[in-house]
Amino acid sequence: MPKTTLVSLAASLGVSRQTVSNVINAPHRVKPETRMRVQHAIAESGYRPSAAARQLRTRRSMNLGIRLMPVVDGINGSILDRFLHALTESAQDEGYRLTLFCAESDSGEIRQYEELLKVADLDGFVLTGTHYGDARTEWLLEHEVPFAAFGRPWSSVEDPFGSGHPWVDVDGGAGTEQAARTLIEQGHTAVGFIGWPAGSGAGDDRRAGWKRAMVAAGLATDTLDIQADDGVPAGAQGAERLASRGATALVCASDSLALGAAAKMRQLFPEQASGTVIGFDDTPVAAAVGLSSVSQPIEDAARHIIAVLAHELAGTNFPGGEEVPERHLLLPPTLIQRTPYSFSSS
Amino acid sequence: MPKTTLVSLAASLGVSRQTVSNVINAPHRVKPETRMRVQHAIAESGYRPSAAARQLRTRRSMNLGIRLMPVVDGINGSILDRFLHALTESAQDEGYRLTLFCAESDSGEIRQYEELLKVADLDGFVLTGTHYGDARTEWLLEHEVPFAAFGRPWSSVEDPFGSGHPWVDVDGGAGTEQAARTLIEQGHTAVGFIGWPAGSGAGDDRRAGWKRAMVAAGLATDTLDIQADDGVPAGAQGAERLASRGATALVCASDSLALGAAAKMRQLFPEQASGTVIGFDDTPVAAAVGLSSVSQPIEDAARHIIAVLAHELAGTNFPGGEEVPERHLLLPPTLIQRTPYSFSSS
Repeated sequence: MPKTTLVSLAASLGVSRQTVSNVINAPHRVKPETRMRVQHAIAESGYRPSAAARQLRTRRSMNLGIRLMPVVDGINGSILDRFLHALTESAQDEGYRLTLFCAESDSGEIRQYEELLKVADLDGFVLTGTHYGDARTEWLLEHEVPFAAFGRPWSSVEDPFGSGHPWVDVDGGAGTEQAARTLIEQGHTAVGFIGWPAGSGAGDDRRAGWKRAMVAAGLATDTLDIQADDGVPAGAQGAERLASRGATALVCASDSLALGAAAKMRQLFPEQASGTVIGFDDTPVAAAVGLSSVSQPIEDAARHIIAVLAHELAGTNFPGGEEVPERHLLLPPTLIQRTPYSFSSS
Repeated sequence: MPKTTLVSLAASLGVSRQTVSNVINAPHRVKPETRMRVQHAIAESGYRPSAAARQLRTRRSMNLGIRLMPVVDGINGSILDRFLHALTESAQDEGYRLTLFCAESDSGEIRQYEELLKVADLDGFVLTGTHYGDARTEWLLEHEVPFAAFGRPWSSVEDPFGSGHPWVDVDGGAGTEQAARTLIEQGHTAVGFIGWPAGSGAGDDRRAGWKRAMVAAGLATDTLDIQADDGVPAGAQGAERLASRGATALVCASDSLALGAAAKMRQLFPEQASGTVIGFDDTPVAAAVGLSSVSQPIEDAARHIIAVLAHELAGTNFPGGEEVPERHLLLPPTLIQRTPYSFSSS
């Protein structure tokens, strides 16, 4: 019997060679009826031990892996949960499923990549929380595993827009810049910043945005910048210190910090108009207590990550004529302004 | 060549028949080295088209499906996110992964079961949000698909503890009963309840708990029971109505309702000692604003669901001597009492 090829399979089925190839490499791009007919023929053929079958086995799981980040305080974490929801929906629309896993660290995450690629037959991964010197992206690039990151490659010494792997990020610095500018336009001349210790990509970026707005307005920043670990109590402490140095309004790197800061500022400035503290991430808590916050277009980010990863996985089988998603995308955030919900007796 | 059997495979490998069977049906219960050796031998054998290979293919995906419920207000939803985290961790400890999917409705969820069982080779499902007349559990039972539910079978006309499928639930009614009793012991004689419209299993159960405490204390409940859709504004409206009927303290079916109710009660009773409103689910928002709340042991529930489902899947291959997890488990909640975090100027 002559060796079965994609060509002979296609001929016997009356479909194009490209269709058979798509069924193997990008099955979601083929109509279900055709896909099932071709898959059935492949399964029936003598192909199992062949390269085509290996490809079939390794490339059509339609499953993407994502690490579920540990729950921190449940306030800031909610942004990642929204991301996961949007990611699952977008993936499903494209014919992919998500496989969840846990890890305690980056190296633990890499061990999971190895394990999952061995046993669970995944097509690729979605990363979150990229940071300086990220060992995960290096490992995935080195092992030629398809992936897309939510977060730009902070460690790249080159222009991140020139880097090797697809990513989507939100321009956090633009968000804190707008937040600070808004407070300056309201008449505040001493706008403080409470952010994380220097050394985290996203944290440094948010600090830089606040600073840009202050410098552009000719305002001093030296004594108005606090580095704190995340959390409600740290926000309250930071606000107390900044207020003692003259700050009348604050931008915070997270809603947890902002929540503590807002409570403290309202204690210190009971007469002041509301809205002197702006948080980051527009979490449910911010909405519930009426805290202004920088909102990330997290659903757009999730959709784009799936689009770019699906495109990556389809590879040369990507049908011409469809729009090619940008491999590197920086999305603008939005400032959500709110009036504090009254928890007081006033 | 004689037909290869489990017995001949076991003999050629020098392992017990049970070990080979476990590798096929419950691979996580076999030491990795042995497992790999047996799996290799099975793959090398002429078994692919046989029942054993089908079993191998269909029963060792070590993958469980779970629907990611839609994001509602991000406050009450956080409990399901904590559940998902704990479930992923417990599953991973047992050698299972979770596959996420989305659906808009119960019938959509059933369509996903069909699809996933066809294409994604899942071992079973975890359900959340069981309710009266749940079509999902009926479908899964009818199709003999292994699953475990977070939530008791509300629709069962028989004793749920006698029902056919494994479930874990939290005794919500015991939680609201304790909450109401605590308020009564603080001297309140008119403790109101704000809950969801009658007809939801969990909602009716929480209402019944509050009522039990009131009746046991010889207190009237007739005018103190409000049915409201979930959410912060509904909580505030409910509190206003109940206060006008004399209520001085409230138990709520959710933290969203309690958040709105607490803000309103502090407006209406500025002189009153704190803690007159108790919510449900101990969400991050409750912790952030200092709201007392009934806490579900969600991590215990997730761990038990995985344990009981893993036991179900291992079936007769479950090693003797290990503790058999209870198929129906009702866990007690805990009342977390807090002092409101000051968002006021006092």
